[in-house]
Amino acid sequence: MNNNAEKKRKVGLWLIGVKGLISATVIIGAFAMRRGLTTTTGMVTASSVFTDLGLVDVNDFIFGGCDIRREPLLDCARRAMKEGITLDSFIFDKITSDLEKTEENICAGTVHNCGDIIENMADGLPAGNKKLSDELLTIRQNLKTFKERNKLDSVVVINLTSTEPPLTIKPCHHNLEEFAKCVKSNNADVGRASTLYAYGAILEGCSYVNFTPSNGALIPALIELAEQRGVPVMGNDGKTGETLVKSALAPMFLSRNLEILSWEGVNMLGNMDGMVLNDPKNCETKLKSKDKVLQKIMGYAPHSKVHIHYVPSLADQKTAWDLIHFRGFLGGKMSLQFTWQGYDSILAAPLVLDLARLADFAKQRGEAGLMPHLANFFKSPLGVEEYRHEAQYEMLLDYAANAGNKHYGGMINE
Amino acid sequence: MNNNAEKKRKVGLWLIGVKGLISATVIIGAFAMRRGLTTTTGMVTASSVFTDLGLVDVNDFIFGGCDIRREPLLDCARRAMKEGITLDSFIFDKITSDLEKTEENICAGTVHNCGDIIENMADGLPAGNKKLSDELLTIRQNLKTFKERNKLDSVVVINLTSTEPPLTIKPCHHNLEEFAKCVKSNNADVGRASTLYAYGAILEGCSYVNFTPSNGALIPALIELAEQRGVPVMGNDGKTGETLVKSALAPMFLSRNLEILSWEGVNMLGNMDGMVLNDPKNCETKLKSKDKVLQKIMGYAPHSKVHIHYVPSLADQKTAWDLIHFRGFLGGKMSLQFTWQGYDSILAAPLVLDLARLADFAKQRGEAGLMPHLANFFKSPLGVEEYRHEAQYEMLLDYAANAGNKHYGGMINE
Amino acid sequence: MNNNAEKKRKVGLWLIGVKGLISATVIIGAFAMRRGLTTTTGMVTASSVFTDLGLVDVNDFIFGGCDIRREPLLDCARRAMKEGITLDSFIFDKITSDLEKTEENICAGTVHNCGDIIENMADGLPAGNKKLSDELLTIRQNLKTFKERNKLDSVVVINLTSTEPPLTIKPCHHNLEEFAKCVKSNNADVGRASTLYAYGAILEGCSYVNFTPSNGALIPALIELAEQRGVPVMGNDGKTGETLVKSALAPMFLSRNLEILSWEGVNMLGNMDGMVLNDPKNCETKLKSKDKVLQKIMGYAPHSKVHIHYVPSLADQKTAWDLIHFRGFLGGKMSLQFTWQGYDSILAAPLVLDLARLADFAKQRGEAGLMPHLANFFKSPLGVEEYRHEAQYEMLLDYAANAGNKHYGGMINE
Amino acid sequence: MNNNAEKKRKVGLWLIGVKGLISATVIIGAFAMRRGLTTTTGMVTASSVFTDLGLVDVNDFIFGGCDIRREPLLDCARRAMKEGITLDSFIFDKITSDLEKTEENICAGTVHNCGDIIENMADGLPAGNKKLSDELLTIRQNLKTFKERNKLDSVVVINLTSTEPPLTIKPCHHNLEEFAKCVKSNNADVGRASTLYAYGAILEGCSYVNFTPSNGALIPALIELAEQRGVPVMGNDGKTGETLVKSALAPMFLSRNLEILSWEGVNMLGNMDGMVLNDPKNCETKLKSKDKVLQKIMGYAPHSKVHIHYVPSLADQKTAWDLIHFRGFLGGKMSLQFTWQGYDSILAAPLVLDLARLADFAKQRGEAGLMPHLANFFKSPLGVEEYRHEAQYEMLLDYAANAGNKHYGGMINE
Repeated sequence: MNNNAEKKRKVGLWLIGVKGLISATVIIGAFAMRRGLTTTTGMVTASSVFTDLGLVDVNDFIFGGCDIRREPLLDCARRAMKEGITLDSFIFDKITSDLEKTEENICAGTVHNCGDIIENMADGLPAGNKKLSDELLTIRQNLKTFKERNKLDSVVVINLTSTEPPLTIKPCHHNLEEFAKCVKSNNADVGRASTLYAYGAILEGCSYVNFTPSNGALIPALIELAEQRGVPVMGNDGKTGETLVKSALAPMFLSRNLEILSWEGVNMLGNMDGMVLNDPKNCETKLKSKDKVLQKIMGYAPHSKVHIHYVPSLADQKTAWDLIHFRGFLGGKMSLQFTWQGYDSILAAPLVLDLARLADFAKQRGEAGLMPHLANFFKSPLGVEEYRHEAQYEMLLDYAANAGNKHYGGMINE
Repeated sequence: MNNNAEKKRKVGLWLIGVKGLISATVIIGAFAMRRGLTTTTGMVTASSVFTDLGLVDVNDFIFGGCDIRREPLLDCARRAMKEGITLDSFIFDKITSDLEKTEENICAGTVHNCGDIIENMADGLPAGNKKLSDELLTIRQNLKTFKERNKLDSVVVINLTSTEPPLTIKPCHHNLEEFAKCVKSNNADVGRASTLYAYGAILEGCSYVNFTPSNGALIPALIELAEQRGVPVMGNDGKTGETLVKSALAPMFLSRNLEILSWEGVNMLGNMDGMVLNDPKNCETKLKSKDKVLQKIMGYAPHSKVHIHYVPSLADQKTAWDLIHFRGFLGGKMSLQFTWQGYDSILAAPLVLDLARLADFAKQRGEAGLMPHLANFFKSPLGVEEYRHEAQYEMLLDYAANAGNKHYGGMINE
Repeated sequence: MNNNAEKKRKVGLWLIGVKGLISATVIIGAFAMRRGLTTTTGMVTASSVFTDLGLVDVNDFIFGGCDIRREPLLDCARRAMKEGITLDSFIFDKITSDLEKTEENICAGTVHNCGDIIENMADGLPAGNKKLSDELLTIRQNLKTFKERNKLDSVVVINLTSTEPPLTIKPCHHNLEEFAKCVKSNNADVGRASTLYAYGAILEGCSYVNFTPSNGALIPALIELAEQRGVPVMGNDGKTGETLVKSALAPMFLSRNLEILSWEGVNMLGNMDGMVLNDPKNCETKLKSKDKVLQKIMGYAPHSKVHIHYVPSLADQKTAWDLIHFRGFLGGKMSLQFTWQGYDSILAAPLVLDLARLADFAKQRGEAGLMPHLANFFKSPLGVEEYRHEAQYEMLLDYAANAGNKHYGGMINE
Repeated sequence: MNNNAEKKRKVGLWLIGVKGLISATVIIGAFAMRRGLTTTTGMVTASSVFTDLGLVDVNDFIFGGCDIRREPLLDCARRAMKEGITLDSFIFDKITSDLEKTEENICAGTVHNCGDIIENMADGLPAGNKKLSDELLTIRQNLKTFKERNKLDSVVVINLTSTEPPLTIKPCHHNLEEFAKCVKSNNADVGRASTLYAYGAILEGCSYVNFTPSNGALIPALIELAEQRGVPVMGNDGKTGETLVKSALAPMFLSRNLEILSWEGVNMLGNMDGMVLNDPKNCETKLKSKDKVLQKIMGYAPHSKVHIHYVPSLADQKTAWDLIHFRGFLGGKMSLQFTWQGYDSILAAPLVLDLARLADFAKQRGEAGLMPHLANFFKSPLGVEEYRHEAQYEMLLDYAANAGNKHYGGMINE
């Protein structure tokens, strides 16, 4: 047992956008869990299916990250409590010191090529006049420092920043060598902040998860790099609300041979994410991510639009309304409507912890490149054609069953 | 080819409750399809997955059945068009003669032990003074006549009557010999109309499907009999609306480890089904059938009630409203509401055709007793513990894949 | 009595956009009513409050109008039945000849300056190369011919065309003389089709009602003209759905001193109106009309947006979803959501008949210029600051009470 | 001015059911307002219309009351914060001492004839073995003590207890003398707890408001007594949620001559009120109160049922879903649905303060008996046939305008 304890791994969880609502909720939740003040409700990996895999314990995560805003983490956490989490203040009081201590693991992020609205949110950052190679160097150095200072066995990097405008994918993004050259030659258009973050993380051997829709993060060249370096990566865009429900409901229509005529969705939200998405350029990335789900599941493209409206008073309580108009036997037109009222951060935060545990596990097992078994966590799962939620979840259960077997198999052989 | 045409099987579809809205829609739909006036939308077995099984063609069904009301089928069909189906009248005009011709295959049903509200709906039937064995004899004779007059290769019987009050299951229902004795000795409490119908059908070697919640139909003794006689049977309670959505949505909460606190459902409907369910005794059977779905899927019993309200003006357009109140990370309470507006008959009718095709297929293959692969069609699938809709559908797809293989395998051997 | 019958007035109802869904429904409804095949449900003036005013009987309307499309009225009516009205076909059969006979009172309309999307809908009209004064002449001539051919005592003109892009109001629109000069000098920008229609109608002494949001119709100069010529006019934009509910609900929040934080509305529709509003230029006019209601009622401007989405499968069944987020005592945030599912034409058509009756009545009484007592029929009632629905309705009731008294007063004197 | 300050009136607000959620919210709100920590949002009398009436300031209320539970008020307030009010804890901390001090004005209530479910909630009260005349004496003595100890100019009594089963109104309830005799002769069935409270309050000259649906409170005999003694009284059943919306929306259908076919309402709530209403006997009173609104407004009785479901997880966040199915022109069926999500106490509490201010004002002005101008506050306004919300609100505005005039008139004369 003591033996076991000595071997206990220390895993770093580096959150890009650490001052955002989701990050604050991830950290508050982990600290509250550590002190026995909350449960694992909402965490997929808390299910008994995963018990035997030996995933890293949430208690053993060390948190760090970067952000373009300088607000102290404690204030971010307070804001998170106001806008979304209805946490008893006495719980908050007990984790105040944990939050304060985490501040030392936080540094400045980059807004390279992120679009005006994100750049305007930055607190006094020298926007864009740095060379790309220097930006990359800083990113790598920050990860190294985090690892060394905290004596970490390994680090998982998760991107939780605001949605960037879409990156136009060009030939250079498909070729690792070309891409590396562009970065060296300071070709500013080669990527956005998320591209640099992913590049740096993979070069440092850190598992990397893109929880945002920003398509600049996991470009083909970087997936190639991840495969070469033995780094597991996955994205894009955490599936937490309307799309989650959509991917669970659409297969029902398929299985009943009911024809979806129109699927119209309206998302209303009032947090910083909503403010950024109020800019049509940034919103475009998000909508692209949400729009293809239906077509992939149904095999045809019904009239379908997803709308995102910024409604400040809702704060973090995202409200989505969907109208599904469908045709049945003898041409009968019918409808299903749903209203989803969920706290964005409350829904996303536990999945971030899940992804960190599973990405760390994949790294331990020597997996490299994309992790398709994590498809159910994403709106646009890279390298996966399966969009039905239940089928995606079965992929994860199968992975866990296989990994569990091999795990024990390995132990028996030792 | 000609050879093949000669061998074309004629299959009878005997509908108990043939004057009801669902039956009328089944028959209208089949006739309209036969004349190329409508498509197969809404039929599960129209999916390409089932193409190679050689299921009986909808065009080859001969319709018949019994009912306690004497309204001509044509009038029932007109009523169906008014209350639910928004069929072009020119389509209706083209199938009028088909409907009239079907009348000759229709006879009187029984109201034995069905409760006051159903008995009051009967048109001049000698309620309940017949001996059980005589009732049974009549039922069998009706099926024989139907088969002979129409020179049918085989008959599928489907129960589409109004919901009866629940039957209290006693030892005699678990023992075929005991049960048979009770019928002979005219023990009125041994069953309800649905019990006699099922008994008669199985004795006549007809596949039997209970599309209603009435638990008196497929009692253990009759399932035993079906196994002995090589008759495939299945039930209970066609899954067409709220429960369909519930069984598709609940697994999503499970896969995300979100705790369902309350799932409150309100069903409003205005057709004859709604009128019958307005009687608390009959409604009890229905609610029992709907209530267990959630517990089976989640593994625990959230606060959950299903309410059924009779709202005449809605006619066949069932409107269900569900409120799902759930808890996520850090104890955050959130909600999902949905409103389902569907024409009951439009949703049920194609499933009745599916079940007839699949039950006939099972009979041809020599299957006997329960057909668990049909679980996804039912709210309370007999002999099945799987209530997640997608998983149930996978059971059907697996069955089709296996049956398809064997089918071709067999042909190769010939 | 005979005397009375001889004096029975014949009133023409000239519908601009007579081939549209609303017009078709107006005419179908009036003819069905005339033949005793339907009731007055949905008509405001059918209430007993108006009985004694002696409004022109719906049976005494002669229908005519113009349109930019050449589809026969009978086909329009058939389309209306498919997309919206769920009329028994036997009713339709009985009024076929009435519809056919109305065709002789229908002529070509103008698309002058209506924007691309409307111009593209026109069937072979010589778009825009006519002089303004000639267009005006044609419009007047059409009205004259309609009146003479049918020996009408009086004609009411109602604009039911698609929404035009907004007209920028300039000094010349405020001055009748200036405006007349611009038309004479063929200054194309001085107005849109709706401006010419209104100008022509008023010059011909026809009461004029603008049921559309197009602000080009009742410009200040034309209201001045109407006052001079003794012609009653009113607009804009018939209040039939979401705005109706909004103007009924907002006062409730006011009376309870509950603070509306956000009122977000989404309108989905699939008819031609929806298609035209899918063009941002035309939609702008509509949204301007809808947006001010809330501010006028509450006295402050909550965050509020109205969105219009074109969803073809819905056809004429407009579906509106509104989210009202409000704050109460101790800062508690609460919400009210509503979903409105109404057939646009079914809701609008009876109001068109009401407005025709009341506009004719006002003309008979010698009223001139705006009719503020009709405020409750409009989203943007001209010359009225009262936007609360109930208060607007009281204005109408007061008018009816006063007009009724004077009416009898007059009769006693005779 | 100083003179004025000296004369400042001290008004007692005696809450029956002072330990309930609504009472706690009333008191928390008043104390928070007094310390400038919250605004008057949600209070009707905060509107400028009432400014000049000189209503008693909320700051000048002294709170007291009785309850059948012994939980300290501070704990009730904490519970209120958990179940409904999302109050910043720092606000709560500042009013803790105020809450504690109020405890001295609180005494035990009675459960006389309240039904099992309410009696079971009582903490060790000697249930029912006291003589009626003794109960009455205690009630009067409590009010006297409250007044004397706090040197109050006047006391308003408001009933905020749980709903009692309906009281069958008999001849003795219509005759003050008869009623008084029954009480003296200890005829237990003559009334329920609410009857005794109202009797005691009126005898002590305290204005009395019945905010609950309990019909036992303001029986005809007691209204007669109120008239004799110059005591203003009013009830029944505070209008805070679904019925509020219904009384605002139904007139819209009336004004448009749209026929309501069905109005089906489902109320879900999880607080103690919900638990009590889960008992069919108590619920009956509530439903009677809610059900007549529609008929009174529309002039006919559409199919309409109101359902109340106890859903514990919702706590104080009442969720109501209503389906309004209506018929328009040409028989077209359409629908309006709404979902109301409001905190019951947050909505009710400010109205309680309003009613206290207005009841006190009426007493000052020498009004006696029913206060019909307060109709808009109640689901079942006593002595009022007007159920349309806006029209009821106009009644209040008219009263305020008249009272204001007389007020000033009076001052001019002095």
